[in-house]
Amino acid sequence: MTAGISLNELQLAARNHGMPLEALKHEITPLGLHYLLVHYDIPVVDPATWRLTIGGRVRSPLELSLDDLEARAAVTAAVTMECAGNGRALLEPRPVSQPWLSEAVGTAEWTGVALAPLLAEAGLEDDAVEVVFTGLDRGVEGGVEQLYERSLTVDDAARDDVLLAYACNGVPLPPQHGFPLRLLVPGWYGMTSVKWLHRITVVDEPFTGYQMVTGYRMRTGDDDPGTPITRIEPRALLAPPGIPDFMTRRRFLDAGVQRLEGRAWSGWGPIERVEVSTDGGGTWNAATVGDPPGPAAWSPFAFDWDATAGEHVLCVRAHDATGRSQPDAPPWNVGGYSNNALQRIAVTVR
Amino acid sequence: MTAGISLNELQLAARNHGMPLEALKHEITPLGLHYLLVHYDIPVVDPATWRLTIGGRVRSPLELSLDDLEARAAVTAAVTMECAGNGRALLEPRPVSQPWLSEAVGTAEWTGVALAPLLAEAGLEDDAVEVVFTGLDRGVEGGVEQLYERSLTVDDAARDDVLLAYACNGVPLPPQHGFPLRLLVPGWYGMTSVKWLHRITVVDEPFTGYQMVTGYRMRTGDDDPGTPITRIEPRALLAPPGIPDFMTRRRFLDAGVQRLEGRAWSGWGPIERVEVSTDGGGTWNAATVGDPPGPAAWSPFAFDWDATAGEHVLCVRAHDATGRSQPDAPPWNVGGYSNNALQRIAVTVR
Repeated sequence: MTAGISLNELQLAARNHGMPLEALKHEITPLGLHYLLVHYDIPVVDPATWRLTIGGRVRSPLELSLDDLEARAAVTAAVTMECAGNGRALLEPRPVSQPWLSEAVGTAEWTGVALAPLLAEAGLEDDAVEVVFTGLDRGVEGGVEQLYERSLTVDDAARDDVLLAYACNGVPLPPQHGFPLRLLVPGWYGMTSVKWLHRITVVDEPFTGYQMVTGYRMRTGDDDPGTPITRIEPRALLAPPGIPDFMTRRRFLDAGVQRLEGRAWSGWGPIERVEVSTDGGGTWNAATVGDPPGPAAWSPFAFDWDATAGEHVLCVRAHDATGRSQPDAPPWNVGGYSNNALQRIAVTVR
Repeated sequence: MTAGISLNELQLAARNHGMPLEALKHEITPLGLHYLLVHYDIPVVDPATWRLTIGGRVRSPLELSLDDLEARAAVTAAVTMECAGNGRALLEPRPVSQPWLSEAVGTAEWTGVALAPLLAEAGLEDDAVEVVFTGLDRGVEGGVEQLYERSLTVDDAARDDVLLAYACNGVPLPPQHGFPLRLLVPGWYGMTSVKWLHRITVVDEPFTGYQMVTGYRMRTGDDDPGTPITRIEPRALLAPPGIPDFMTRRRFLDAGVQRLEGRAWSGWGPIERVEVSTDGGGTWNAATVGDPPGPAAWSPFAFDWDATAGEHVLCVRAHDATGRSQPDAPPWNVGGYSNNALQRIAVTVR
């Protein structure tokens, strides 16, 4: 970390929530342990008066209550979600925003309705290009007052795994996860899955809102317009073994065979291999990889390590079916996005 | 803030959870928004094999399953809990530990069984002095390997509002709040309410564990043994009005009458008065104070402010029935505890 975290960054870290990495022991992240990134304030929404509208370049605009949505065929999917800024605080120099280390992830069982049939029911006009999703959370960012909104191309919006979710782990969405309704785009970083969704607008040209054109772009410098952040890059994380020191989080464990366990994911394709290093990345060993709880969810992995007394650094590396992996040094970028650098865990074996 | 937050502090801030202050709009904090401070790792506990033992200086040691506890008379209470370290990052110089600003608070409806009848059933020996509560979370702190444990005097343990809680907001305790069972001591800072409780030991001399003798003491310097941290000092917090800037959290709101709302609490007695200042503490106005949802829970307050265009700093100050209030400059202390300094919210009225 190049410099101390500033008050602005601390204010963000104190209100947004990371997933403590020992929660990797849970295939489905318990409610309250899933990561949470909220740009503005968490709105308080009255479900009795809340409505979802679908309008713009459609033939039959729709207005739906929560009851209307819950009366439709329900879909449940386990989906791993990660913040696009995960790993930001480990980049040097450190881009200033929410200072995530590696804990901005979680897997929930989301329940809702498929988006595609709703769009078909509304009937897209022939000139439809994108679908804009607008939340109820309002704030100022980069000097621009805005409701949080993001768009998808009509092709991406029509994918059959894109949901409008009203429940999480079997209960109504908690306020912080978008009550009463959120978009859910499996495989993409979390910024796409607009929370507190209340308006869907089909448009005939690419949407140029702040979160599409200014935020969430991979930019090499201030003059680079950059490219949009979309799918989640591969990452593996170990549940830190042994016991921690409170202040440093250094781990202590006993000599002998220790089962190292964690989870790995990629938004580009299934996890094919996970490697574990117990010497800081000098040599690598194949981990056993298990089945994920869903096609867009993390895969468990395990490796039995014969731990010897002394100091060690554990690393893990994920490989997906598209050939993507975790680079030794991910490219620096202005916004601090997609830093899937290898996890490094310092352990003392006694 | 005297200096940048270090990597060690950031690691703690990234895993512990603050309550985003807009959640003050909820009388009962929704699950997942309550503050969370975990010293070591969150244990994974199998409720089928878990048992609570009550032993030591008792005539009839007890061993209870979760079913045994749930079969007893249930008590539900709304209780405001706050971390003893809340406000630590605002002290100068800043004590190094979890760097809370002012968000380490929450109010939940806890359900469980009263502790006193269980202790009576076990039968305290005449030489019983304290009751030690031991959790399942193990780690190293100050060089000492330990299970997290704290004690109460036999008198404090016998208070009729002290609970062993197995549910929170109507559902089984989530792992992070102590599943399957935690102690709950209303009015005291959170460190007392031991999570993942599995052993209660009655002892015949004051307990000298790390969290009693080294941690959680009000110490003026390294040579001062200090005094134990016990009850929650008074504090009032406003839900920040208007809308935020993402990065700075500065607030923007419209000119005209704005209702300022928040909640105030004290572990020493009921809240009697709350004052609001809209000029950074220069002048003060009385807020309207409502009823708390329980004797150890926060009280709502409100004040209608005729906001004029310009820059303002909002402050609030709580007064309890014992005459305690919030000092202008709380005393610095080694551990950074009990800093109930006045909240200051910078707002731009447009």
